[in-house]
Amino acid sequence: MATKDVKIPARPGGQLKTPKGTRDWVGSDLILRDHILQTASEVFKRHGGTPLDTPAFELKSILAEKYGEDARLMYDLADQGGEICSLRFDLTVPFARWLAMNNVSQIKRYQIAKVYRRDQPAIARGRLREFYQCDFDIAGLYDPMIADAETLRVIVEVFEALELEVTIKINHRRILDGLFAVAGVPDEKIRSISSAVDKLDKMTWADVKKEMVDEKGISDEVADQIGEYVRRSGDMSEMLQFLKSDPRLCANENVKAGIDDMSLLISYLEALDVVDKVSFDLSLARGLDYYSGLIFESSQVGSIAAGGRYDNLVGMYAKNPIPCVGISFGVDRIFNILNACRKKKLTHKVDVYVMAFGGKEFDGLLLERMSVARQLWNAGISAEFAAKVKPKFDKQFKAAKNLRLAVILGQDELAAGQVRVKVLRDSDDESDSKDRGHLVSRGNLVEEVKKLLI
Amino acid sequence: MATKDVKIPARPGGQLKTPKGTRDWVGSDLILRDHILQTASEVFKRHGGTPLDTPAFELKSILAEKYGEDARLMYDLADQGGEICSLRFDLTVPFARWLAMNNVSQIKRYQIAKVYRRDQPAIARGRLREFYQCDFDIAGLYDPMIADAETLRVIVEVFEALELEVTIKINHRRILDGLFAVAGVPDEKIRSISSAVDKLDKMTWADVKKEMVDEKGISDEVADQIGEYVRRSGDMSEMLQFLKSDPRLCANENVKAGIDDMSLLISYLEALDVVDKVSFDLSLARGLDYYSGLIFESSQVGSIAAGGRYDNLVGMYAKNPIPCVGISFGVDRIFNILNACRKKKLTHKVDVYVMAFGGKEFDGLLLERMSVARQLWNAGISAEFAAKVKPKFDKQFKAAKNLRLAVILGQDELAAGQVRVKVLRDSDDESDSKDRGHLVSRGNLVEEVKKLLI
Repeated sequence: MATKDVKIPARPGGQLKTPKGTRDWVGSDLILRDHILQTASEVFKRHGGTPLDTPAFELKSILAEKYGEDARLMYDLADQGGEICSLRFDLTVPFARWLAMNNVSQIKRYQIAKVYRRDQPAIARGRLREFYQCDFDIAGLYDPMIADAETLRVIVEVFEALELEVTIKINHRRILDGLFAVAGVPDEKIRSISSAVDKLDKMTWADVKKEMVDEKGISDEVADQIGEYVRRSGDMSEMLQFLKSDPRLCANENVKAGIDDMSLLISYLEALDVVDKVSFDLSLARGLDYYSGLIFESSQVGSIAAGGRYDNLVGMYAKNPIPCVGISFGVDRIFNILNACRKKKLTHKVDVYVMAFGGKEFDGLLLERMSVARQLWNAGISAEFAAKVKPKFDKQFKAAKNLRLAVILGQDELAAGQVRVKVLRDSDDESDSKDRGHLVSRGNLVEEVKKLLI
Repeated sequence: MATKDVKIPARPGGQLKTPKGTRDWVGSDLILRDHILQTASEVFKRHGGTPLDTPAFELKSILAEKYGEDARLMYDLADQGGEICSLRFDLTVPFARWLAMNNVSQIKRYQIAKVYRRDQPAIARGRLREFYQCDFDIAGLYDPMIADAETLRVIVEVFEALELEVTIKINHRRILDGLFAVAGVPDEKIRSISSAVDKLDKMTWADVKKEMVDEKGISDEVADQIGEYVRRSGDMSEMLQFLKSDPRLCANENVKAGIDDMSLLISYLEALDVVDKVSFDLSLARGLDYYSGLIFESSQVGSIAAGGRYDNLVGMYAKNPIPCVGISFGVDRIFNILNACRKKKLTHKVDVYVMAFGGKEFDGLLLERMSVARQLWNAGISAEFAAKVKPKFDKQFKAAKNLRLAVILGQDELAAGQVRVKVLRDSDDESDSKDRGHLVSRGNLVEEVKKLLI
């Protein structure tokens, strides 16, 4: 056993924190995050998505050589004897591993789970070391661009359901590759020039050009020609028009194939009524190596959804490559945007507070409060009561603040088989209700409470 | 940077598996597991539970010295520079850390998340290295046994909602400690004798006695006296009767305090209508050190829910100890039980398949199929279509097998603004429907489909 001999402080009291780049989620934050995940998964199901859940860690050999430079950000598990594992870095590679392992040739799958990257945290900007990804992917050999179009439709549906106004930038790896070749970039420099171009959303053209010429060693003329191309974006027909009008581009096999794909895509996006949500942007390049066709990204203070077609990744595990296209939503960034504009605090308050009230001889009526709460729980109604034998009346009212209803017990009313029901707060109103309450028989309590909670 | 220099095979193809003791979850298994988690969280919310989510790993110093011998099963993260962390072992210690860190003095919190233990896996029995826990805990200083009673009520509600017939064994740590003292066990041996007694559900009394006498070094007479006590179980009043009738037990402070607690508990469980779900079992001891009062466990092929009161754990992190009582559900064991008795396969199938049909000149009507699917998605209806330009009719029908409805497009009907709607399967019926379909105008399609899907 190679267990590491880590020194543990004798008293753990010293460091009361979560590990660097991680955080706890509780209450209204968690409710909002669940709302995002729930909304997305409803859209995925509407499109025939099947849920998948994979372990939080994978064999390191499965993850190796998939993430290029970023692999240094991977969390490794300690070698405690047995297999060498790392925490998952994304959900795409585990999905590819699962497809290959189970010989699945066609599936729409979604997965919502945390992934782990030892990056420099920037919590305000939503960059954490443990964060949620929310992925939808279509795997399988189909006719060209149909699955790609449905994926773009899924993005639009998710953002519409979240009431976020978003445009999707799209591009095509083969058009990009062809365009670099036509501009005069040698083959072996295409990926590195591509990542320089990808920075155009954060840097000026002058700086990107400087990087290409000074650091990546291409000529001034080639860089200028690239600039002519990649600073163009616009609606799909406009951009296709531009590409088709350049005879040098049209002569390139990659560009030609890309134009064919994009032409098909226009008609499909029109049929799916999302063509106006899309902007064709020749500067979009996307970092990851494995993309092979259409790529896309939605940004708003950083990328909030991004993806593309990756036809060769599964082939790294299985004999038969399975073409895939998919999208990953940046849940934490979406959370930050929605959190900044939400109006009222979300809470998981129960609906009913069961309280008791009485004079000098008041014994607290605990068993009776329990029995009424039980009656409500049995009917599926959420309820609480003070965990005190003799609670003070004002403390009970304070605890009931912000809840919808109070059920108030008194000795005399109980003897007559009755309890008082009082509306504390109307559902669509933040202000206190003026209701003074009314008596209801125990037998009608559930019915009455249900009526008032509608 | 102390990154370990792990040797990675050049081609990852060799080992296509999940790490030892872990598994993927997909499709109907995942739907059933989600059903369990969803059911539990609805009960928790009904009782005023607030959701909490903590990171999958914690500082190792936080987890240290909480799990006794079991700590050797903890997964450590590799030392890659920076903090020393381990994967969480349960949800109780992270909850205690969170309470102390945020100075929370009262809360009902629930947490549903995976935990990690490097135990010997036994997948058929539901023992995995990565598994879900589903915890509900009440923290805060309240009057005695009220929160304890509500916790037991929560267990009953969860199992009733899952349609599982379950009895909860309960016991009290102070009764157990007092009873060992009365029997003549020296203080320093009480915990180890307690864990021997805990094995009575898996071992005979003779074997347990042998362990106590031979391995733990207590006398034959003391062991026999323990046996007199711990082999008793029954309903609460019966057992209280027994304890009260023994003058030696009643003279012990711990037993007396436990009897007081249990007497209160009876009346509360009666008010909450769960007293008949509970069996008072003097052999129940529970392994973990931190329990300080009531303990409980539901078993069915292993423990499927267990917990108790732990009043001193939070005090290991915070200046002020916060009394807590809580329950943890064994999701994977519950899954195995429900999975064994479920009747039909659960699926995430969409409701509607959009297909097209035509003669020799048939062009596949892809854009029209997309447009109809879009109309259904816009209305929140789940739908799919073949991702082929010219799909074969029989392949489309095969893909639609098991779905509820087909919307069938034909050139002539479309020209007349109509589509055919055909019921493939009635909702409550496994057999194919005999419906031959009927024509509906595009404008009425959503309404008609919604009507048929009710």
